[in-house]
Amino acid sequence: MSPPSELLKRLQEYGQEHLLQHLHLLQPAQAKRYLSDLNELDLGEVCGYFSRTTAALNEDDERKLDERMQPIPASLHGAVTRTPLEEIMAYEVLSEAGLQAVSEGQVAVLLLAGGQGTRLGVSYPKGMYDVGLPSHKTLYQIQAERLVKLQELGAAMHGKSGAVPWYIMTSEHTKEPTMEFFAKHDYFGLQKENLVVFEQGMLPCFTFDGKIILEAPGKIARAPDGNGGLYRALRSQKILEDMDRRGVKYIHVYCVDNILVKMADPVFMGYCMDKGADCGAKVVEKAFPTEAVGVVCKVDDVYQVVEYSEITLKTAQKRNPDGRLTFSAGNICNHFFTQEFLKNVVYDYEAGMRHHVAKKKIPHCDAHGNTVKPEAPNGIKMEKFVFDVFQFSSTLAVWEVIREDEFAPLKNGDGAEKDTPSTCRHSLYSLHQRYLLHAGGQLVDSQGELLPLIPSPARAPKCSENGCPETNNNSDQKELNWDENPVVVEISPLVSYGGEGLKSLVEGKKFTCPLSLYDDREKKIQSKH
Amino acid sequence: MSPPSELLKRLQEYGQEHLLQHLHLLQPAQAKRYLSDLNELDLGEVCGYFSRTTAALNEDDERKLDERMQPIPASLHGAVTRTPLEEIMAYEVLSEAGLQAVSEGQVAVLLLAGGQGTRLGVSYPKGMYDVGLPSHKTLYQIQAERLVKLQELGAAMHGKSGAVPWYIMTSEHTKEPTMEFFAKHDYFGLQKENLVVFEQGMLPCFTFDGKIILEAPGKIARAPDGNGGLYRALRSQKILEDMDRRGVKYIHVYCVDNILVKMADPVFMGYCMDKGADCGAKVVEKAFPTEAVGVVCKVDDVYQVVEYSEITLKTAQKRNPDGRLTFSAGNICNHFFTQEFLKNVVYDYEAGMRHHVAKKKIPHCDAHGNTVKPEAPNGIKMEKFVFDVFQFSSTLAVWEVIREDEFAPLKNGDGAEKDTPSTCRHSLYSLHQRYLLHAGGQLVDSQGELLPLIPSPARAPKCSENGCPETNNNSDQKELNWDENPVVVEISPLVSYGGEGLKSLVEGKKFTCPLSLYDDREKKIQSKH
Repeated sequence: MSPPSELLKRLQEYGQEHLLQHLHLLQPAQAKRYLSDLNELDLGEVCGYFSRTTAALNEDDERKLDERMQPIPASLHGAVTRTPLEEIMAYEVLSEAGLQAVSEGQVAVLLLAGGQGTRLGVSYPKGMYDVGLPSHKTLYQIQAERLVKLQELGAAMHGKSGAVPWYIMTSEHTKEPTMEFFAKHDYFGLQKENLVVFEQGMLPCFTFDGKIILEAPGKIARAPDGNGGLYRALRSQKILEDMDRRGVKYIHVYCVDNILVKMADPVFMGYCMDKGADCGAKVVEKAFPTEAVGVVCKVDDVYQVVEYSEITLKTAQKRNPDGRLTFSAGNICNHFFTQEFLKNVVYDYEAGMRHHVAKKKIPHCDAHGNTVKPEAPNGIKMEKFVFDVFQFSSTLAVWEVIREDEFAPLKNGDGAEKDTPSTCRHSLYSLHQRYLLHAGGQLVDSQGELLPLIPSPARAPKCSENGCPETNNNSDQKELNWDENPVVVEISPLVSYGGEGLKSLVEGKKFTCPLSLYDDREKKIQSKH
Repeated sequence: MSPPSELLKRLQEYGQEHLLQHLHLLQPAQAKRYLSDLNELDLGEVCGYFSRTTAALNEDDERKLDERMQPIPASLHGAVTRTPLEEIMAYEVLSEAGLQAVSEGQVAVLLLAGGQGTRLGVSYPKGMYDVGLPSHKTLYQIQAERLVKLQELGAAMHGKSGAVPWYIMTSEHTKEPTMEFFAKHDYFGLQKENLVVFEQGMLPCFTFDGKIILEAPGKIARAPDGNGGLYRALRSQKILEDMDRRGVKYIHVYCVDNILVKMADPVFMGYCMDKGADCGAKVVEKAFPTEAVGVVCKVDDVYQVVEYSEITLKTAQKRNPDGRLTFSAGNICNHFFTQEFLKNVVYDYEAGMRHHVAKKKIPHCDAHGNTVKPEAPNGIKMEKFVFDVFQFSSTLAVWEVIREDEFAPLKNGDGAEKDTPSTCRHSLYSLHQRYLLHAGGQLVDSQGELLPLIPSPARAPKCSENGCPETNNNSDQKELNWDENPVVVEISPLVSYGGEGLKSLVEGKKFTCPLSLYDDREKKIQSKH
């Protein structure tokens, strides 16, 4: 089969005619599929991405990034920890505004869930992971139930029950399993029509001199276009139109892996609305200068996330007179956007944005049509990041929360140094213990003695397996009581979204661990099993 | 063999005559040893400890600890991070004062090294542990070399070479191996006579009603008396007299497990001396309310470390208007004492101090003389902590340092959630990388490209073993370059104690990882192998 001359001409126009070089090796059916694939490829778009992106690489650096970075102005950088008591009341107002928007159906959440759990050691979507809570709820279920509860809170406060549609951006690997999982579990109490699963795109990989890489005869090498592929997908999958139909005005975007995520947090949403922001970022204070976290800041007066790989030691260590790091707004992929802003991005700005370049070893075809794995990087993947659009924001509000209350990502399998199923589980237990204590409940051990707020590391399960030392003699930490159970407290999101509504259930009562608080709806389900 | 009537009488006086109940089961030689053991037991002392300690338990709590706690006053709470640039000069002065004391032989270091590496999974002293640096230096060697270098710095600055004697408190399990280890390695360049290894004591275990527990016929149940056993050992082993002979005036006390410990840090010593303090505590800022770290504070106007097990949620979460935790002075077992203060403690105060009580399952003898392991706690161990003497301080200075620069403890084996050989190694690499960068050196990868300050988690060895995901698509962190090596930089303490003296070696130069900087003395040794 010889290629249609029109296609050949178009490929030549973009210098990509090598894509046809092994056509003669393909079976007719294969060749047909491949030619159709090539026809669908928007060469203008993808080659445009390449030339804009690489042009940027060759530009002179002008002034160093260090000199161009400024922190977010204090007036747009709120922080839970630095809000005086008298302003706590204002929180309530913010929260009310956020819940009002919820009850009026103006709020949506958008989940970035394209990643497989490769680093976790599983082949299915991360959202389907069970970190080992007593309930064995997956990340998807926890999040679904938080949404259910949020809708109920909005309805209870404003007497109007608006739905919070949940947009889930998947990849080619995660879309099917995600959809099947939700269907199998009756959408965990959500309305099926309020769950919108869509797929992010892929982009061809290029050689350093701009040729699209052929992975095998009849197969272009492609890679996902990063979580910033969101914007391209919003357009191609017509998601903004869906939002228009529903009357969505505010969108909370977040990553699937944070087990503590407060979806559409009314305080955060209310804060951003109050500031008249078109973009918002919920951040945590960067803990130390070389922590691997990007920081939200301004560069040449434009909002940006400077990634930790771009920062120099001098900038990383810079401090304010009060001792705080100057660039402390640690990005946790937890963002607010107005729908209007997203429209501007998707229809006006997005196409002209530059991608980030990741040099990679990309398997490619040799002269005989055999696929070879290169020893050294031979090409690039192009990616965008979800925060790349901050540059288009006219007012970006930063809301700094307490890390232990809101951020515990699941990235690695157990045994890694951080962000594991165990650290996620313990973060959730600790938060729920604090909910319980704040509501006036108490935790006691099997002897009836109050458990300390902070469990001793000697009581972690790992240690009791290996045999604990009789006396940890050289530590400045004394041993606690003799109860071997670590603190295990899990409160269903259907009982409490963020610590509210617990007083009547727990005040003045004593509980032993493991403690699970379920909603009546769940008790019925539980008793069935 | 029947017991001497004098011993029986003395035992009866203290209600401990049950210790003789199985005497008839012992062989004559055993019985002789046991009676001699009983004769050596200072019943007045140990029973006194018990009654004082348990009396304290029965006292009413009066006012809650929360209401009685106050932070250390700002005038005595210095912090590296909050010291303005113009005061950095003052640091130099402090450091000079510290080094002058070193050069005049007025400074000693005292290491708490009684613990075995049980939680680490080894049976030898923790100080002999090799965390896997390129040099394979053990904690003991690293510390010894820091001392060697410190002495050289003092001599270079003040033209006088004073020794810094190193007192190492061991336990019955760690004394012999520690002494052998140092002897085998020629004391790592230190003078043998400046190393003083001594042993902390043990105390009998008691039943809840004050009877000393017999573990087996002829064997009293004993346990180490905590790292605060230091003070009893200083007296019984005549360590203060040794200090007197050497003219030691200032002592830095620390735990063996902190791989970053700056022994006799001249800035810390100088700061405490400048404040006229008799006690000092180097601290790190507590990272979050429920972090498992004790805090240095005042209780009823007396200095104290309130341990994390004693703190309530309300107090733990208390914040200053600037957002900082009110009780933020995180204790890292890194203390300054004047020798005069230690004398007062050891000769006047120590005997009257109360122990802490740890309820335990203590194996004991039944009526037939058989040892049984109890199912529930049946007795107590009595312990003191090294910081228990803060209550006697008239001026205690707190010096807050940056955690990533100075604190990385080794507590657990790899696979645990924190404080493992891997986290220690990475903390040291990161610190030494910063030393290098500050001195004007650069790190490049095998392609000659600058390494980023912060390595990507995807490049950690663990990940490359399991296969990294091609694209970590849902993280807000982009992938870095393609070099697979994490940053490995080890600078020998013989080259630099704390980052000084590197400029002439590294400025303007490019290095690849793994990078080891050795001193000429070591190169000779290295080449021998």
